[in-house]
Amino acid sequence: MNSQIDFDLDKAVRKVKDFPKKGILFYDVTGIFTNPVVFKRVVDKATQIYKDKKIDSILAVESRGFLFAAPISYNLGVPLALARKAGKLPGETIQESYKLEYGVATLEVHIEDIKKGSRVLIIDDLIATGGTLKACANMVEKLGAVVAGIFGVIGLPFLKYADVLKDYEITSLINYDSE
Amino acid sequence: MNSQIDFDLDKAVRKVKDFPKKGILFYDVTGIFTNPVVFKRVVDKATQIYKDKKIDSILAVESRGFLFAAPISYNLGVPLALARKAGKLPGETIQESYKLEYGVATLEVHIEDIKKGSRVLIIDDLIATGGTLKACANMVEKLGAVVAGIFGVIGLPFLKYADVLKDYEITSLINYDSE
Repeated sequence: MNSQIDFDLDKAVRKVKDFPKKGILFYDVTGIFTNPVVFKRVVDKATQIYKDKKIDSILAVESRGFLFAAPISYNLGVPLALARKAGKLPGETIQESYKLEYGVATLEVHIEDIKKGSRVLIIDDLIATGGTLKACANMVEKLGAVVAGIFGVIGLPFLKYADVLKDYEITSLINYDSE
Repeated sequence: MNSQIDFDLDKAVRKVKDFPKKGILFYDVTGIFTNPVVFKRVVDKATQIYKDKKIDSILAVESRGFLFAAPISYNLGVPLALARKAGKLPGETIQESYKLEYGVATLEVHIEDIKKGSRVLIIDDLIATGGTLKACANMVEKLGAVVAGIFGVIGLPFLKYADVLKDYEITSLINYDSE
């Protein structure tokens, strides 16, 4: 485990074996939300990292990504677009299917919420295989915008997201090794 | 339509007919998130309403509720617990099933995240029949805590949530009539 922050984020991340299925070690971020000091520091750190990066908007990944993306967009004062599971958004959408660490899924984004030529920061809670975030990056690019960065609170580099997301600048606040 | 706020929230709420199914008029809050001025005003208004109400923690309803609850808990500096769809939370949970405006669902909450005797503010994006919020209130009370208030950005009083939630103090920023 290594961390690029000066407060004890690790203690707020619960490690749960065999969830959601056997053989998976699940990194549970709910302990960040129930600790207002840690939550504030995470949000403030992300705000500080991106405030001078010319971010035009944020794309938040449903649904744990919403919890970090909302206060970060509030702080940065930029529009927040949502990447939601299929069938939840009422407007005209672009869709992208992808493999999960455990399963397959489809995300969609309101087309009008990603502006051509804009610089979009994509936010999720955790970066694992990178499949979800690559699907989001694909949608951003298909809509003519630029992925200005990818932010996850937790990174699991042993799942090789750096290969899948090699074209993008990835930031995570804490990384965990294979165990 | 009536509003208790002094900015034009109504314009940010898109009304979509026949979504997610025929006969339903859907109030889409995504236009709030893509308008940083409106989003900030909504979050700041809720912060102002609850800052002196002795709120110990917030319970956020998945998943659009997350987007308002996260920055409000960030501002208030109180712990944020999550009411998630069944099977998403890895710790020991309490569950509650309820009728939706269109369907049935089960929500669950980490038992350890709701402290006995604490005052909990429940937050969702929209208050319609009140079924989701009543299920959340039931879980809060079964865990020995007190529902200090229920907040939704949008209220649809014609769907009679006031009957279902009659024991609670309900606040919405904008209300819509039957059409």
